[in-house]
Amino acid sequence: MNHVVHYSPQRLDASFGALADATRRAILERLGRGEASISDLASKFDMTLTGIKKHVQVLEDAGLLTSEKVGRTRTCRLGPRRLEQEMAWITKYRQMLEARLDRLGEFLESTKGDEQ
Amino acid sequence: MNHVVHYSPQRLDASFGALADATRRAILERLGRGEASISDLASKFDMTLTGIKKHVQVLEDAGLLTSEKVGRTRTCRLGPRRLEQEMAWITKYRQMLEARLDRLGEFLESTKGDEQ
Repeated sequence: MNHVVHYSPQRLDASFGALADATRRAILERLGRGEASISDLASKFDMTLTGIKKHVQVLEDAGLLTSEKVGRTRTCRLGPRRLEQEMAWITKYRQMLEARLDRLGEFLESTKGDEQ
Repeated sequence: MNHVVHYSPQRLDASFGALADATRRAILERLGRGEASISDLASKFDMTLTGIKKHVQVLEDAGLLTSEKVGRTRTCRLGPRRLEQEMAWITKYRQMLEARLDRLGEFLESTKGDEQ
């Protein structure tokens, strides 16, 4: 990816924060296999409806989950965010780290003769 | 990346949590340009030493920053973690989302004739 990505700090705070919880990641993995109601999720994760709703809200605020209420049932689906900014940020971190390790390698190489 | 990545939930919680803060991401970006002391970072981000130290500790616990104290100066560097699991997790999310949108597209395509 070489196109310029504009980072929205609030968006990255929300998405990385939403991903920083094993249950929330597991909810997304579950939705990857198909839509689920709040009660499906509560039963799968052995949590209260209130507990699941809190996680669903955090994921929805971060754009990783969409929910729709029909009658008394709220159905959850994955998306709509594609996490492009998050991928781009992590890719940049990795490039910075590689560059640092390259510089370190060159430095170590250049001092090799010093111990003779 | 087609090799199997083993996810460590605690590790993903820590790294995504560490990345969920604009100042902490900015500290990492600063270290991408070269090492910095705690006081360098405090002055750059106009924060107290105590405030910066808290962020540095969170980043260090997540393996995104290494620090070394020589005399009275603590120097911070990027790494050592390469965020492979985090990249892999986000990649998987994106694949799940693509697959969901594909299924939705097929469904919409299959119902196209219904309105005639």
